[in-house]
Amino acid sequence: MQSFGFYSPTEVAFGKDAELKTAELIKKYGGTRVLIVYGGGSVVKSGLLEGIEQLLAKSGIAFNSIGGVKPNPRLSFAKSGIKEAIKFGADFILAVGGGSVIDTAKGIAHGVANPDKDLWAFWTNEIPLERSLPVGTVLTISAAGSETSESAVLTNDETNTKIGYDTPFNRPKFAVMNPELTFTLPVYQVACGVVDIMMHTLDRYFTPTEGNEITDEIAESLLRVVIKHGKTAVANPSDYEAMSEIMWCGSLSHNGLTGLGADWDFAPHQLGHELSGKFDVAHGASLSAIWDSWAKYCLKAKPERFVRYAQKVWGIEKGNAEETALAAIEKTASYFKSVGMPTCFTELGIGVQSEEILRELADRCVFFGKRTVGSFKVLDREDVYNIYKLANH
Amino acid sequence: MQSFGFYSPTEVAFGKDAELKTAELIKKYGGTRVLIVYGGGSVVKSGLLEGIEQLLAKSGIAFNSIGGVKPNPRLSFAKSGIKEAIKFGADFILAVGGGSVIDTAKGIAHGVANPDKDLWAFWTNEIPLERSLPVGTVLTISAAGSETSESAVLTNDETNTKIGYDTPFNRPKFAVMNPELTFTLPVYQVACGVVDIMMHTLDRYFTPTEGNEITDEIAESLLRVVIKHGKTAVANPSDYEAMSEIMWCGSLSHNGLTGLGADWDFAPHQLGHELSGKFDVAHGASLSAIWDSWAKYCLKAKPERFVRYAQKVWGIEKGNAEETALAAIEKTASYFKSVGMPTCFTELGIGVQSEEILRELADRCVFFGKRTVGSFKVLDREDVYNIYKLANH
Repeated sequence: MQSFGFYSPTEVAFGKDAELKTAELIKKYGGTRVLIVYGGGSVVKSGLLEGIEQLLAKSGIAFNSIGGVKPNPRLSFAKSGIKEAIKFGADFILAVGGGSVIDTAKGIAHGVANPDKDLWAFWTNEIPLERSLPVGTVLTISAAGSETSESAVLTNDETNTKIGYDTPFNRPKFAVMNPELTFTLPVYQVACGVVDIMMHTLDRYFTPTEGNEITDEIAESLLRVVIKHGKTAVANPSDYEAMSEIMWCGSLSHNGLTGLGADWDFAPHQLGHELSGKFDVAHGASLSAIWDSWAKYCLKAKPERFVRYAQKVWGIEKGNAEETALAAIEKTASYFKSVGMPTCFTELGIGVQSEEILRELADRCVFFGKRTVGSFKVLDREDVYNIYKLANH
Repeated sequence: MQSFGFYSPTEVAFGKDAELKTAELIKKYGGTRVLIVYGGGSVVKSGLLEGIEQLLAKSGIAFNSIGGVKPNPRLSFAKSGIKEAIKFGADFILAVGGGSVIDTAKGIAHGVANPDKDLWAFWTNEIPLERSLPVGTVLTISAAGSETSESAVLTNDETNTKIGYDTPFNRPKFAVMNPELTFTLPVYQVACGVVDIMMHTLDRYFTPTEGNEITDEIAESLLRVVIKHGKTAVANPSDYEAMSEIMWCGSLSHNGLTGLGADWDFAPHQLGHELSGKFDVAHGASLSAIWDSWAKYCLKAKPERFVRYAQKVWGIEKGNAEETALAAIEKTASYFKSVGMPTCFTELGIGVQSEEILRELADRCVFFGKRTVGSFKVLDREDVYNIYKLANH
C-alpha cells in the first residue's frame, strides 16, 4: 500500500429509529444551544423536524431552526445562517437533510467560529481554517456521503462558482442514519444518489497509483453492492434492504476508505460541478452525464485499470483489453440509463450547447488555465473542452 | 442492513517513516508527560525506542519508559505500569509494540484515570469504565488490530484467566503504522499475525445474522487479500507490498467494519483464550489450532454460510452444499498449515491432552456453566468439550 492518513471520527448510529438518539448525541458532543438547519418542506411534512425539536425540548436543549437550503447550496444562505446562529448564540449545528443541508451546516459552523473571516476564503483556500463548531447530522438522502466525510461543497451565487472544500473540521461529530427516513424520496433523487455514491468511488478508483489492493477490493465491493441494490431502490424506494445497503455505502464511499493511499482523480466531479454551477442541474445527474465521455476520452491513459474494473465489478472478460474496457464503460452507461440517469447533455435536459458555452465551461473548469483537472489522466483546458464536446449530444 | 453503531475515531498515519509523526500526534491529543510502554528487546535493538524518545525530547515532551510486556499480557504488569505512570504524573500512554503492548497500555490508561478502582473489575464488567487517559500507538506487529480497536485482552496471572474487554475508551487516539517496522519479525510471528487477522474477520463473518451485504463483501475482500499476501509475507517478511497490505487489513479486521450489524460469534477466540491461558501458547496459533474443529462441529448450524465463504473467498463450487462447505474448511486448514500454523493440539505443541484437561478447559471456557459461547452456533459446556476433543490429536 502507499502512504496515507485516515481519520474518520464520526460516530454512526444506523438503523430503524436511530433519530431517537439525536438529543443524547448532541449532549455527548457538548451541544447546549443548537441551530437546526434543513431544506425544503419534506422534513416538515414527514414530521421528522417536529419530532427532533420535541426530543431536544424534552432533553433541555435550546434550539432554533432555519429551513430553505436548496440543492447546490448557496454561499449566501450559509452566510445568513451564520448570522442567525450568532444571534441565537448557537454552540452546535444540527443538519437534518441530505448533502446540501449538511454542507450548509458545515459552512455555518466554520463561519460562526470565525466571525471576522470571509467564509468563501476558506473554500478558495486563501486562509486556513483553524477552528469550527461541532456539527451533527440526521441523514434523509443517501448520496453525498457528507454525513461522515471531510468534504463540503458550496456554490458562490455571485459568481456561479461551485467548489468542494476538504478539511478535517468538516467531519461531523455524529451521523444518525435511519434508512426509513429515505423511503419517501422521489425516484429521481434516489437515482441521483446511487450515481453520486458510485461516482465517489469511481473518482477514487480510477487513479494512476498502483498497489493498494485492499482499498481496490473494498471499492469494487462497494460498487457491486450499490449497482445491485440501486436497481431495487429505484424500483421501490421503501425496500429496507436496498435502501439500507445504499445508505451505508454512501458513507463508506466518501469517508476516505475507498481511496486510501491513492491519488484522487475526481475529474468527472470537477466537470460536473461546472454543469451544476451553470445550469443548476442535480449533482448526481451532472456526473452520469459526463462520466461516459470522460471514460472514453481517458481510457488509453491506463486501459488495464478499466480491464480490472470490467472483471471485478461487471464480471466482463472479452477478447482483448480494449474491448473489455469499452464493454465496461458501455455497461456503466447502460446502468445509469436503466435507473433513469442521463449520459449526455440532451439527456441531462440542458440540450446541445454552442461552441462558446463549451469553451466557457472548459475555461471555468480549469480556472482559466490556472489548474489542471484529475490525475488518472491529467486534463488541461483542451482536454476538458474535448470531453464536454463528446458529451454534447 | 441490520442496525448498528460504529465509532472508529483513531487517527491513522500509515507508511514509510510514519513514526516521525509520533511527537506531533501526542501533542495534538494533549500529551505532555508520556509513559512509553514496550515489550522485549526488539524495539531497543532496532533503535526504534531510542528514536522515538529522541523525537519526544526534541519536542519538549517529558517521558518515562517501561519495558517487559510479554505475549498474553499480564494484569500484574499493567498494575505495576499504573503505579509507574502515577508516580511519573503521566497524562498520556504511548504503546510501542504489538497487541500485547497496546492492550497493556490501554489497561494502564484506565487504571491511572481510576486510581481507586480495581483494574480487573473493569475486565469482568463488575464496574463500568467512565474515564481513561489518551493512548497513542506505534505498531510493530500486524496482528491484533488493537491499534484502532475497542478491545483489549489481559490475563489475570493469579487465576490464569484471559479476558477480552470492549469499550470505546479502548480506542487509541492515533495509530502510527510503518510496515517497515515489521520487517524484522520472526516468520512464526508474521504467520500468527496473519491467522489472527483472518480470525478477527472469520469470527465476525460466521454469524447467524442475515442481510449485511456490504459488510460481508468487505469481510470477503479482506480475507482474500490477507490470504494472498500472507503467503508472500511469511516467505519474505521484508516484502513491503505484502507487509503493508497485511498491516492495514489488521486494523480493518478489528475496527468493527467487518461485522457491522451482525451478531458476533467469536467462539474460536473464546476457545483459543483458554488454550493460551493454560499453556501460554501464541494467540494466533491457538486460533488456527481450534478453528478447523470448530468449523466442522458448527457447519450444520448454517451450511449456506460456509458455501458463500467457499465461493467468495476460495472460489470453490462443488456438487452440493456440504461438499462445498467442507472443501472450504479443508482449504482454510491447508492454508494455515502452509504458513506454518497448527490445526490441532499436537501441531500446537501441547500434545494430546487427558479427558480431565479437556473437561477443565471446557468448564473454564463457559465460566463453569455461567455462560454459553458464540452465536453462529450457541455452544454450551458439552459443545465446547466436543470441539476441544475434535482438536485433541
